[in-house]
Amino acid sequence: MEKKFWNEEMETMPLDKLRSLQEKRLQSVVAHAYEHSRVYKRKFDEAGVKPSDISTLGDIVKLPLTDDLGDIRNAPFEDKLSVPLSEIKMYHSTSGTTTGIPEPIPYSTRDVKAFFEGEARGRWTIGARPDDVVQVLTGFDCCHRGYVEMGATCLLLSAGRGFIDKQISLTQTAGVTIIEHMPSLMINYFERAKELGFDVTKSKLRLVSGVGEAWAETYKKKMETKYGIPFTTLWGSVELGVAASQCEKRCGMHIFSDLIYLEILDPETGTPLPDGEEGEIVVTALLMNEAFPLIRYKVGDVSQIYPYELCACGRTHPRMAPVKGRISQIVKVAGKKVMPLDIEEVMASIEGLAENYQIVIDRPGELKKLKVKLEYQPGIGDLNTLRNRIEEVIHQNLGVESEIELLERGSIVSDTYKAQRIIKTY
Amino acid sequence: MEKKFWNEEMETMPLDKLRSLQEKRLQSVVAHAYEHSRVYKRKFDEAGVKPSDISTLGDIVKLPLTDDLGDIRNAPFEDKLSVPLSEIKMYHSTSGTTTGIPEPIPYSTRDVKAFFEGEARGRWTIGARPDDVVQVLTGFDCCHRGYVEMGATCLLLSAGRGFIDKQISLTQTAGVTIIEHMPSLMINYFERAKELGFDVTKSKLRLVSGVGEAWAETYKKKMETKYGIPFTTLWGSVELGVAASQCEKRCGMHIFSDLIYLEILDPETGTPLPDGEEGEIVVTALLMNEAFPLIRYKVGDVSQIYPYELCACGRTHPRMAPVKGRISQIVKVAGKKVMPLDIEEVMASIEGLAENYQIVIDRPGELKKLKVKLEYQPGIGDLNTLRNRIEEVIHQNLGVESEIELLERGSIVSDTYKAQRIIKTY
Repeated sequence: MEKKFWNEEMETMPLDKLRSLQEKRLQSVVAHAYEHSRVYKRKFDEAGVKPSDISTLGDIVKLPLTDDLGDIRNAPFEDKLSVPLSEIKMYHSTSGTTTGIPEPIPYSTRDVKAFFEGEARGRWTIGARPDDVVQVLTGFDCCHRGYVEMGATCLLLSAGRGFIDKQISLTQTAGVTIIEHMPSLMINYFERAKELGFDVTKSKLRLVSGVGEAWAETYKKKMETKYGIPFTTLWGSVELGVAASQCEKRCGMHIFSDLIYLEILDPETGTPLPDGEEGEIVVTALLMNEAFPLIRYKVGDVSQIYPYELCACGRTHPRMAPVKGRISQIVKVAGKKVMPLDIEEVMASIEGLAENYQIVIDRPGELKKLKVKLEYQPGIGDLNTLRNRIEEVIHQNLGVESEIELLERGSIVSDTYKAQRIIKTY
Repeated sequence: MEKKFWNEEMETMPLDKLRSLQEKRLQSVVAHAYEHSRVYKRKFDEAGVKPSDISTLGDIVKLPLTDDLGDIRNAPFEDKLSVPLSEIKMYHSTSGTTTGIPEPIPYSTRDVKAFFEGEARGRWTIGARPDDVVQVLTGFDCCHRGYVEMGATCLLLSAGRGFIDKQISLTQTAGVTIIEHMPSLMINYFERAKELGFDVTKSKLRLVSGVGEAWAETYKKKMETKYGIPFTTLWGSVELGVAASQCEKRCGMHIFSDLIYLEILDPETGTPLPDGEEGEIVVTALLMNEAFPLIRYKVGDVSQIYPYELCACGRTHPRMAPVKGRISQIVKVAGKKVMPLDIEEVMASIEGLAENYQIVIDRPGELKKLKVKLEYQPGIGDLNTLRNRIEEVIHQNLGVESEIELLERGSIVSDTYKAQRIIKTY
């Protein structure tokens, strides 16, 4: 009989046992970092906290937050490395798009094991199985290896990479059952397939997984309805690997709580927010990152932990909402916070709009009105009515005034791999 | 004690035993292809040959040659596939640069095992060991996995990919000991490193491996002398995986004869050439390619098998010369055959030239004179003397008249990933 869980013992562990495991691992992670990483030794000393001060999960707030740029990237490699260099068995790396310098992430033998556990569990949880044929179309070469680890058949990354027609041809030939892609590119892929005479609804394709960016729930549902293929998602980062994944019940992503401890903080005050409130994700790696500890690490993503409820799938791990975007994408408008995904949800609910949009920030600080550029579908005659309708829906849903500029489809060109939803003009 | 061979049993098998193994595998490969692949059934039937006609290695000449484009690419996928689709566990793919259509290469479980055997054995043979830290800078994502398979630490492909300064920064931080790269790009890499203040001669780097294109022996020796780092090479293709590799004795590449049967044929007549003569490489996959048999497959590369001599390294497998280039790169000049590598060897022996060159073909058919564009180093005053010197050396070494055009360094820009050494102007 097919197994239901990738790691049944961990995934279905009673909550109190899970919390004890987290506590034990937290203590050991903190002690390890303090003893072996000059970065954490300095940070903890400055904050006046010792490993012995951390005995419960609640004590975690005593530990200082860790910042990507200040604490991690700017520190010399030797100051972060917490095992001898000879024990490093794999190197992952950030792309360096933000800073221009890719940050190498070293993995010890234990880290490699934990990394593959997360990658494989993430894919198993979304529903991938060993008899699947998977096409990974993102540029993230780690994703591919998670599917291989869990036993699925994979097309190599180099297979038609970057050429949509070639990729579509391979989807057909190889009888692909799962595609993993950047969500914003998936609709283009399906539309181009149709133009080429490939009907995905009649193909073996049975699941689409989106990673690397947020995508409006309304779009996902539209795509599911139109193509009859479920759109699922998982969450992780280059530093952490896969850390949460959607199960077949599709009500949030199970946080891999044996591997990470996840907090949601108020991005301005840094204080913990209760479940159900949206804020900044802060992660402590409990098993991975032995070589390069991440303790209260500000991931930079926005989400919330759902109020705890046991999931019908049988997994006991708490669930989080799909990631809504990056902290840096929060736009303040007349006392309210708006994110690109909010605009996307509005767009998806209005007929006549194309897929691209941009929020325009034309001055520093809080804005009075939200300025948005939006593409409309060819054939729309009355742009004024459309414009008014959008401004109305934005006001209703987000409570802010807006100024909409409508552009012909194709006017907004994204020149980077991930869609750029916010532009600054000042 | 460290093991000397990746697969001692296979690599040191007495020659007569190796030949018997090849014979047995050849019989089985031919029978399997005839029974399960419509492409080979048709080809063998047309040639009037049956699996029972193949009992010795010498019988292989009875089998028709297999052409990449005609037999493989143009055939429907199902006609080539020789195991049920459900038994495919991995897909590799050609890049599609030649035809515009990437050809998916399916692997059965047995093929995956044989593929990793070749990849890992290739790296072990050049001298890689589990304590090495490897940076693969080519675009070939299969290479990376061979190093992981043999136990070495690897930087992920996405680590700084495409940005030479970032890659150099990672070489230092991670304490890289082996770089695998396209040979023609290696000198640039080292020179840029020097500009950035990174002295590779004082780093942990101890080996450079070149794949994907031919490179003049004279250049390799120059680099070894200048940087004190051995330059080694292995040979394979997307379809076959790694099929031959240089050992520490550096006198040719050991052909993985348990995995492939390699013939050298006259490219015009298709008749087998004796050892020591240069011609077209034709390969029969003996263990891999169960899913997609390759029998007398014209790889398109030019090389020779060296007259048999037992290697001092202890490996019994016959050796071949480093690949000299592609069949399509043979230029006929007044009855002689010239290849880009011949020009490269001439260039490398003359002071004052830069790294880029192109052979110009300005008419179909045989040429009377060889036309070559060459870049010269800044600061060269007397171009006439240099030009005459090159024409003289070309005449001495290759026996053909030539017409040399000298260009300033940087004039010849390659717009593809692999260096383009031949241009047609008619």
